[in-house]
Amino acid sequence: MADFELLKDLLLPNRTKIVLLVMDGLGGIPREPNGPTELEQAKTPHLDRLAAEGSLGLTIPVRPGITPGSGPAHLALFGYDPVQYQIGRGVLESLGIGFDLQPGDVAARGNFCTVDADGNIIDRRAGRIPTAKCIELCNKLKPITLPGVEVFVEPVKDYRFCLILRGTGLDGHIEDTDPQRKAPPLPARAILFQAEPTAALINEWIGQAREILKDEYPANMLTLRGVASDPGLPRFSEVYGLRSACVAVYPMYRGVSRLVGMDVIEFSGESPEDEFAAVQAFWDAYDFFFIHVKSTDSRGEDGDFEGKAKVIESVDAALPNLLELKPDVLIVTGDHSTPSVLKSHSWHPVPTLLWAPGTTQRDAGKAFGETECAKGALGMFAATDVMPLALAHALRLQKFGA
Amino acid sequence: MADFELLKDLLLPNRTKIVLLVMDGLGGIPREPNGPTELEQAKTPHLDRLAAEGSLGLTIPVRPGITPGSGPAHLALFGYDPVQYQIGRGVLESLGIGFDLQPGDVAARGNFCTVDADGNIIDRRAGRIPTAKCIELCNKLKPITLPGVEVFVEPVKDYRFCLILRGTGLDGHIEDTDPQRKAPPLPARAILFQAEPTAALINEWIGQAREILKDEYPANMLTLRGVASDPGLPRFSEVYGLRSACVAVYPMYRGVSRLVGMDVIEFSGESPEDEFAAVQAFWDAYDFFFIHVKSTDSRGEDGDFEGKAKVIESVDAALPNLLELKPDVLIVTGDHSTPSVLKSHSWHPVPTLLWAPGTTQRDAGKAFGETECAKGALGMFAATDVMPLALAHALRLQKFGA
Repeated sequence: MADFELLKDLLLPNRTKIVLLVMDGLGGIPREPNGPTELEQAKTPHLDRLAAEGSLGLTIPVRPGITPGSGPAHLALFGYDPVQYQIGRGVLESLGIGFDLQPGDVAARGNFCTVDADGNIIDRRAGRIPTAKCIELCNKLKPITLPGVEVFVEPVKDYRFCLILRGTGLDGHIEDTDPQRKAPPLPARAILFQAEPTAALINEWIGQAREILKDEYPANMLTLRGVASDPGLPRFSEVYGLRSACVAVYPMYRGVSRLVGMDVIEFSGESPEDEFAAVQAFWDAYDFFFIHVKSTDSRGEDGDFEGKAKVIESVDAALPNLLELKPDVLIVTGDHSTPSVLKSHSWHPVPTLLWAPGTTQRDAGKAFGETECAKGALGMFAATDVMPLALAHALRLQKFGA
Repeated sequence: MADFELLKDLLLPNRTKIVLLVMDGLGGIPREPNGPTELEQAKTPHLDRLAAEGSLGLTIPVRPGITPGSGPAHLALFGYDPVQYQIGRGVLESLGIGFDLQPGDVAARGNFCTVDADGNIIDRRAGRIPTAKCIELCNKLKPITLPGVEVFVEPVKDYRFCLILRGTGLDGHIEDTDPQRKAPPLPARAILFQAEPTAALINEWIGQAREILKDEYPANMLTLRGVASDPGLPRFSEVYGLRSACVAVYPMYRGVSRLVGMDVIEFSGESPEDEFAAVQAFWDAYDFFFIHVKSTDSRGEDGDFEGKAKVIESVDAALPNLLELKPDVLIVTGDHSTPSVLKSHSWHPVPTLLWAPGTTQRDAGKAFGETECAKGALGMFAATDVMPLALAHALRLQKFGA
């Protein structure tokens, strides 16, 4: 991962602008042997010009062969080794629904479930109740209060919800209450000594919730999993000396950006043009912009090869608006691959383009695509090195040693 | 970094010759998008032939994005992780002026400075006194003696000098005496307990120096920084089983070579021909030769694209003299990049050529240049792996495990 201590010693005052444009799940594979990938099929004249002028490479999101989720994949792009910095599922779930998680909060994923007369779980998903029912039940649970802490109960989807506690001295090192078999839910148990008061609060909340839910069939009980606190990640301002901003439509990516200390820019619209306009509006206020495009991944997960290529084309078409701002360093990449033939995230290294007028190495890559990126001057490299390379090409790092 | 323990177990008796030819700051970038780099512009028929026959790659000197100084960059080429093995600035400065530093010596960088009537530093560089004045003041300080140790005071340039103590039990873990603000110089303070006797000696020296300098205006006081001992690096003879020699014109590189236990060959002249002749003269006495060419870096720092290309051409022209010796392994690389468009060291990976008749992998690289190296069989790799690869291609390492 990025060596934060080393970088901190080498940082120079900031007079340059860095843009990290992430097309979610950008990487792909061909539909037939030797055919083009989605990116290679897409007509991308602007990206191809940047590729010819800049340096290309392929990034490994986590480790070779490892398929990342969206949280770890973005942490890696931000320079944090996602194996070292694991964000608890409760935290990710809360971020994913747009909950404004604060440092110190403890968050858990909740399931409504069905218990029999003896209290044993007989359906871990309460017959997959509809989301409307989930919202209704969450509203019934919201009035529960606990001494000294604020409590939030937020519906997610179907039988899933989030529980968040806010207060001082809370600690998320608490075991799941789901016994994973036909048995009563477990009490919340502290894994570390310092989590015992939090576990006691959660057990008090569970007790009150049990009373409220007891006549609700099939969702007459609940379990909590992935209890976790904000992982306390080093902040972008500290490790890179950057005033950084996130431009993203989906809550999850805004949330992960907040975890590393980025400001989240509010804007209207969802298109690449709208996102680039938001960057333009705040161009003078920040040194670093993370722009997230979601639908490359969505079309990949749908198995829609042509649709994914079209999303890439729409980003390319809007790109002149971004280039007009004259960023000093522009990186275009994905957080991971989502090949439409696999209809899912994958481990394949991700095509990466680094364009920085006057400071980039020449290479043989002449267009933005997986095959050309394999010929690039950046080689195959860890996604966690994207940020150090961005800083270097922005001439933001002084020499190490004499 | 090179796994010294692993290598030691695998070393075979030496019957082969390895040559590491380092053109300082070899790597470059194009003057205009898609133009050639300095190395690519240079006419290098001999290097191109070796490139076609051998394997190519790109080395990362320290970490991706990190621009190294000359000391760390050479340590990396020699197999030592320069983040783990940091050589103190006092040691590097002493080596840079050609001082014959010995194991156990403690060296510091000194500044002459100006203090006011209250002893507060009002000019950290004593008005940048000329070097002639610096030499005169160092001569006045040389008579200072300390109990049980030898003392050396050596001028560097302008207001800068080196102080070196030689004796038993000395320890360089001592803080800078420069307060970095308008205040009196600090006393030398031990960072570690075992450095306290050394700190006391240095304070005694400073006290005597203060008396000698008090009427010298503007250089009426001094500060000491970067106090350090020889880092005690593992020796080439131990970790690689090599009888190794350095052929270099500049003191700094001869000094770093001595730190890893190389013999330094004395020779006359400064050209590549002169250096290759020195190698020839000692060909039978050593198994490993490190040859250092400085002016590639100097022309790069001058911003002289054509000049740097010409230096590379002069090395290429002299190369047949080296090849006549029939080395078993010849590596041609740089310690870092010094693109003339940046007029400074840079982080860009360094073109690397490994030629070893009969043991090298074929690759698509057909000429010695950054673009071709990006296609090479060696890929993008850490500079600290150059030595293990050299040993392997010299058939010096046995199988690991059965």
